[in-house]
Amino acid sequence: MAVIDVTLGVDIGGTNTKFGFVDSAGKCITEKSIPTNAHEPAENLIARLHENVDETMRPLAGAYVLRGIGIGAPNANFYRGTVENPPNLNWKGVVNVVALVRKYYDLPVAVTNDANAAALGEMLYGAAKGLKNFIVITLGTGVGSGIVSSGELVYGADGFAGEIGHTTVDPNGRECGCGGRGHLETYASATGICRTVGELLAIRRAESPLRNIAPADLTSKMIADAAGKGDPIAKEAFEYTGRILGMKLADSVAHLSPEAIILFGGLAAAGALIFDPTQRSLEEYLLSIFRNKVKLLPSGLTTGDTAVLGASALIWNEILKQRKQ
Amino acid sequence: MAVIDVTLGVDIGGTNTKFGFVDSAGKCITEKSIPTNAHEPAENLIARLHENVDETMRPLAGAYVLRGIGIGAPNANFYRGTVENPPNLNWKGVVNVVALVRKYYDLPVAVTNDANAAALGEMLYGAAKGLKNFIVITLGTGVGSGIVSSGELVYGADGFAGEIGHTTVDPNGRECGCGGRGHLETYASATGICRTVGELLAIRRAESPLRNIAPADLTSKMIADAAGKGDPIAKEAFEYTGRILGMKLADSVAHLSPEAIILFGGLAAAGALIFDPTQRSLEEYLLSIFRNKVKLLPSGLTTGDTAVLGASALIWNEILKQRKQ
Repeated sequence: MAVIDVTLGVDIGGTNTKFGFVDSAGKCITEKSIPTNAHEPAENLIARLHENVDETMRPLAGAYVLRGIGIGAPNANFYRGTVENPPNLNWKGVVNVVALVRKYYDLPVAVTNDANAAALGEMLYGAAKGLKNFIVITLGTGVGSGIVSSGELVYGADGFAGEIGHTTVDPNGRECGCGGRGHLETYASATGICRTVGELLAIRRAESPLRNIAPADLTSKMIADAAGKGDPIAKEAFEYTGRILGMKLADSVAHLSPEAIILFGGLAAAGALIFDPTQRSLEEYLLSIFRNKVKLLPSGLTTGDTAVLGASALIWNEILKQRKQ
Repeated sequence: MAVIDVTLGVDIGGTNTKFGFVDSAGKCITEKSIPTNAHEPAENLIARLHENVDETMRPLAGAYVLRGIGIGAPNANFYRGTVENPPNLNWKGVVNVVALVRKYYDLPVAVTNDANAAALGEMLYGAAKGLKNFIVITLGTGVGSGIVSSGELVYGADGFAGEIGHTTVDPNGRECGCGGRGHLETYASATGICRTVGELLAIRRAESPLRNIAPADLTSKMIADAAGKGDPIAKEAFEYTGRILGMKLADSVAHLSPEAIILFGGLAAAGALIFDPTQRSLEEYLLSIFRNKVKLLPSGLTTGDTAVLGASALIWNEILKQRKQ
């Protein structure tokens, strides 16, 4: 039997670090999760990751061969191979994650943030297969974005391009975790829609089960469930969120003229509740030359952990580029 | 004496069409202008252009050899070689300008819009020499933009990327020529600052010589002159314009992480009056990871017609890419 090439995808999160071996078609062979232990230094995590990966790889060794390691992490810089002051990890300053991993593996290793990893995952195995110009928007706790132009991820001058979540909706608007005001992330993220519900409950007099949930306990899933049952506050919150998201995505289209925008992550799981108002608003705000041209799509990554698939795509993308040359 | 390679740069405007021969260093050998005669079909303009170019080239033939023709025109599409429903020309529908020119010249011919041409001009001969990630913003009657990412112009899926002038500042704001509302172009263009003066004259009670000029007669040059003499309305208009422009450019930086943004065209000629408030506002609205990293620069195209230089760069860029391969 032929030996199958795989890459290792690693997703470093604040709580857990997931990893899996992925073949060139995006099939995840096996997947595991270890605690990140965010209070420990990065060296410890990488040492434990190495042990666990080796242990998982051992029984697969005859059938699969590891070709490289792709890592998705918050505040990652692809150019420098670093993770810089990550918000949910107690890693001080700038950590060269690529160098740490290469102590154990003499293989190509690369790191990028989760939104860029998601974009590569969609391009290689998902909804953006065959597309050269598209944007992935991750609607999670925050709003991230990965931009692909002419088939290449846009990293910009310093590796930090693709921060659409921190574009300004309202210069006098909501306080953002980054210190700014009125950023897209404060409206269109899972936490943003919770803030919107808070505002709407203050403005409207309508009955709503959401009035019985403390703001700190509210989740976007609860709002989606309430909207599904016809709750007017929850429905209006999705309308409002989609309206703002669509307007700002029209700005992104004016910059980049993508073929498609892919909505990814927690809030995107609400389906039509978020897609419909976003699509309507996007079309309304688009410059006429772009109208009815830009597809708004859900993620096409359906098997296994999407973050692991995205991270693995970081290496597959490089391998496939080399094979073409 | 060695024969020198030149490309022809052509700038098709609503009133005049300028052309010039430009060497690889961006030196313009000779430059001429013919009336566009915007009411006539495109074929007539190209036929007259051909006659004039040939006549101009004849005495230069021993010393220079023509390597290609680059054209800057409104609503131009680089991918298709077309000009599509140009606002100031009575050309019906879609005109394949590249095909028209190639009837006369068996040479590489390409067309793009003036902002993209300006970006290539800056990259090859101007303020963006050596830069791989930058944005050129043209502040003229409208606001155009040319985006360079990883050393390549961003055309997007359909060739129309780089419409930063039509991003939304205020969804309930000023009517835009495109049919939209509150676009950057309605604030930060030469006509936009005239509209701002109109608003300020209504809001403020301050004396101002601008009160004696009919809105239809007002120009951005008059506002710059008044500001230079200390007129408070004119000064506030520049502050307001720079504030909005800087805020929206921060959004562009969040998308693309450029090394530099180059302000180009009529309103940029106002110098510190527009650069200072734009720079302050840009820094204020930038996400912290981008602060103090993005240079705001004036055009570096100083010799001859900048639009002709930009158009010529369209071909030089292709030639230089081929030589590198």
